[in-house]
Amino acid sequence: MAKDISMDAVKVIEIKKSVFEDNDKDAAALRRQLKARGVYLLNLMSSPGSGKTTTLIQLLNRIKGKLRVAVMEADIDSDVDAVKILEATGVPSIQLHTGGMCHLDAEMTRQGLTGLPEAGLGNLKGAGGCDCPEGGRSDTAGLDLVILENVGNLVCPAEFDTGACRNAMILSVPEGHDKPLKYPLMFTVCDLVIVNKIDVLPYFDFDMDKCAEYVHMRNPKAEIIPICARTGEGVDALADWILKEVETWKAAPEL
Amino acid sequence: MAKDISMDAVKVIEIKKSVFEDNDKDAAALRRQLKARGVYLLNLMSSPGSGKTTTLIQLLNRIKGKLRVAVMEADIDSDVDAVKILEATGVPSIQLHTGGMCHLDAEMTRQGLTGLPEAGLGNLKGAGGCDCPEGGRSDTAGLDLVILENVGNLVCPAEFDTGACRNAMILSVPEGHDKPLKYPLMFTVCDLVIVNKIDVLPYFDFDMDKCAEYVHMRNPKAEIIPICARTGEGVDALADWILKEVETWKAAPEL
Repeated sequence: MAKDISMDAVKVIEIKKSVFEDNDKDAAALRRQLKARGVYLLNLMSSPGSGKTTTLIQLLNRIKGKLRVAVMEADIDSDVDAVKILEATGVPSIQLHTGGMCHLDAEMTRQGLTGLPEAGLGNLKGAGGCDCPEGGRSDTAGLDLVILENVGNLVCPAEFDTGACRNAMILSVPEGHDKPLKYPLMFTVCDLVIVNKIDVLPYFDFDMDKCAEYVHMRNPKAEIIPICARTGEGVDALADWILKEVETWKAAPEL
Repeated sequence: MAKDISMDAVKVIEIKKSVFEDNDKDAAALRRQLKARGVYLLNLMSSPGSGKTTTLIQLLNRIKGKLRVAVMEADIDSDVDAVKILEATGVPSIQLHTGGMCHLDAEMTRQGLTGLPEAGLGNLKGAGGCDCPEGGRSDTAGLDLVILENVGNLVCPAEFDTGACRNAMILSVPEGHDKPLKYPLMFTVCDLVIVNKIDVLPYFDFDMDKCAEYVHMRNPKAEIIPICARTGEGVDALADWILKEVETWKAAPEL
């Protein structure tokens, strides 16, 4: 049952614009910091209204007993999503306000992670003064998995490495199967494409084979998982994907 | 009937990044230039997959006998939309490649207008050397209306004045009625919100009254026109809106 959780229960962080010029270097540093602490970070992107939050609720309810997980909800200025996640799953969620920014970079992501008390990550330092020497530190962090729900936008978030271990995106059936043709970089940088709202396939001109063909034009290795977040169809496969990913990441040697 | 038009038939312009620092000033200059030439520019924005191109085809087929109209399709790098528009309506269409840019500003829009041979606008100069002195010139341009289909994105395009006379956006039913809460600036800057895909209302949790309430929270004067671009339902009202807009714009005193 959904608990009655007031808006005040959700921590809101006003993200400041990044001060680091070299985002790629900073993102690589953040990935090393996370690896050293055993935390897997997934960057989830999509258009507005593709069903990111509903998908997350279904996914979190399947994995929360198996992994210690938290969510960071990036939004321009509303707190709706973090409250929804917390109410529906009990999973720790914070809201990142981007102050009008259309994407998150690695330093903005780091600000969010530092603000997640459950992560036990302390005050992660950026590329300018990385607190994670080559070889990593042995702190045991409090979480196995953090999911970052990026700003709803198929353009800008694709251009900035957040420091995540993997990028995933949701393409919903009503948006059409031609989106990899029109937003090439988004599909190039994503390891996983979740095709959501498959329950409405009969009402839309969406060709799943064409979709797969166009996705693989951009990234031949991308996996595609069709789901319906509203009913939960296909979400078990998504949960299996993330469980396996986190296990592999933890078992891999230091970055 | 759709004509068989090859991709080569559509002019493609590679838009260069704007050189003007003060976009607001440059946008105001472009609006004066357009007013002096009797050309109404509509900036149409939306998320990816909301149905901008299908809506345009329906709209153009209703107004092309009444107005001299052309379309500029902004896209990161595909040419699909301009070809579709030309095939389905015969209306002059050019494709603007933004080279990865997530929005258009006034100078980028001017580059597009200058490249529209039908507009007879010649080489419009920017704010740095505006060719339109206060009071305007009396050239008769070749078009009454240019519609700019902006990059599919609810964040960045809202931040940049393109020099258009009016901003409109399409919100499609599958995206949800809460979008004005999450993308406030987009709804604040739009004079018209077109609610598309109303044929699938029975399959989605979309509340039209809530939608209107949230839109008017952002812009109390915004008009809302519900349509189904696939079937054409409601598009007559949209055509009436634009015909009246162009008439009013032409009759108004110089800017």
